[in-house]
Amino acid sequence: MNLVLLTEEDFQQGNLVSLTGERAEHIIKTIRVKIGDSLTVGLINNLMGIGIVTELSNTTVTLCVELNSQAPTPLPVRLILALPRPKVLRRTIAACSSFGIKEFVLINSYRVEKSYWNSPLLQPEQLNKHLTLGLEQAKDTILPSIRLAKRFKPFVEDELSSLLESSKGIVAHPYADDHCPKNTSGHITLAVGPEGGFIPYEIDKLAEAGFQSISLGPRILKVETAIPFLLGKLL
Amino acid sequence: MNLVLLTEEDFQQGNLVSLTGERAEHIIKTIRVKIGDSLTVGLINNLMGIGIVTELSNTTVTLCVELNSQAPTPLPVRLILALPRPKVLRRTIAACSSFGIKEFVLINSYRVEKSYWNSPLLQPEQLNKHLTLGLEQAKDTILPSIRLAKRFKPFVEDELSSLLESSKGIVAHPYADDHCPKNTSGHITLAVGPEGGFIPYEIDKLAEAGFQSISLGPRILKVETAIPFLLGKLL
Repeated sequence: MNLVLLTEEDFQQGNLVSLTGERAEHIIKTIRVKIGDSLTVGLINNLMGIGIVTELSNTTVTLCVELNSQAPTPLPVRLILALPRPKVLRRTIAACSSFGIKEFVLINSYRVEKSYWNSPLLQPEQLNKHLTLGLEQAKDTILPSIRLAKRFKPFVEDELSSLLESSKGIVAHPYADDHCPKNTSGHITLAVGPEGGFIPYEIDKLAEAGFQSISLGPRILKVETAIPFLLGKLL
Repeated sequence: MNLVLLTEEDFQQGNLVSLTGERAEHIIKTIRVKIGDSLTVGLINNLMGIGIVTELSNTTVTLCVELNSQAPTPLPVRLILALPRPKVLRRTIAACSSFGIKEFVLINSYRVEKSYWNSPLLQPEQLNKHLTLGLEQAKDTILPSIRLAKRFKPFVEDELSSLLESSKGIVAHPYADDHCPKNTSGHITLAVGPEGGFIPYEIDKLAEAGFQSISLGPRILKVETAIPFLLGKLL
């Protein structure tokens, strides 16, 4: 945790914030603050700043907060991700949130196991928890949105084309002929398939919607490894 | 597992391979092969090819193997990594092995917890296990080497300069002024610090040895996320 993420409800009185629970425990036991120490803080979907520790117990931390700086610029990338297994999803959305991606769509694909759609992780509060971990890691306050598109065809046919009017569509596909473009400018909509890749029908549908298929070479990478690598290449 | 990695000892008779244990279990229960199916196989530090399933029981798979293709080209990158906590180390070396990095040095740093050096994970057979997972993921056969440099100063002073005679040294450092170079050519020696970064003394020592400090921007990334991102940018 490199930033303590606050909500409006945390503010008690003016600029005084009193924390209990997980955040307080981390600040007290892991960071091991003393009175007078300063922490990087941020108000969710708002400014970042500094919190000075003014009171401290075994379970509560009080901070005097000054918010005065903007969150870092979001990454100009929308991620469309074939729903991975929950363990991978958790890590991937936290990592992508730390990169500054603000818009996620989790879609179905032929190779997505149906049971993944029943995971409790897909509850909004659970998703937000892992997105928040990414914000706290990266020092950011702007909470991303995640949309679930459980039906591949209507989403791709009815919605993706219009999303691509102001964004370049790229789909990572192990069997594509084109290499990943480098140092692109403008907004990108990046689609990443399941382990094993999208099936040809899905790649065709994505191509109809305007996506370019690109390959990362002969090595088969895990989703959670491939995405940061793709972002490094594209940006 | 996208490739079944074989050793010389697995060959029973000519090109017949009989597998038991973890690999057989994965092939039988997860991949669920039938007699006549073909699998991508590779001989460690040697060629890759195809194995046709000729016999099958609940615990044993026999393959008729033909090895006829080269492993993919290694990545021209040497990774010098401040020893992370074991969980992160496991994931990082498997991921970096899947990218094709063949040379790792794990070094000490002021911010590395001393207890990490006592982890059983640092036994060669444990390290090789996780490197092998990366090879099986990426379809590669060339086992990387990992060297432990438990003393920062002698390694950096006495050895790093000569390693940089034929390699460009880059250290990822959150407070550097330079941005990460893109699309570099030639061999790179990439140094990545612990969570919290190398301390100024260590950065100075790395600079003396010829390393350029580069930043990835204002966001603080986890080691396991930062490395694939750096590789995407550099290559």
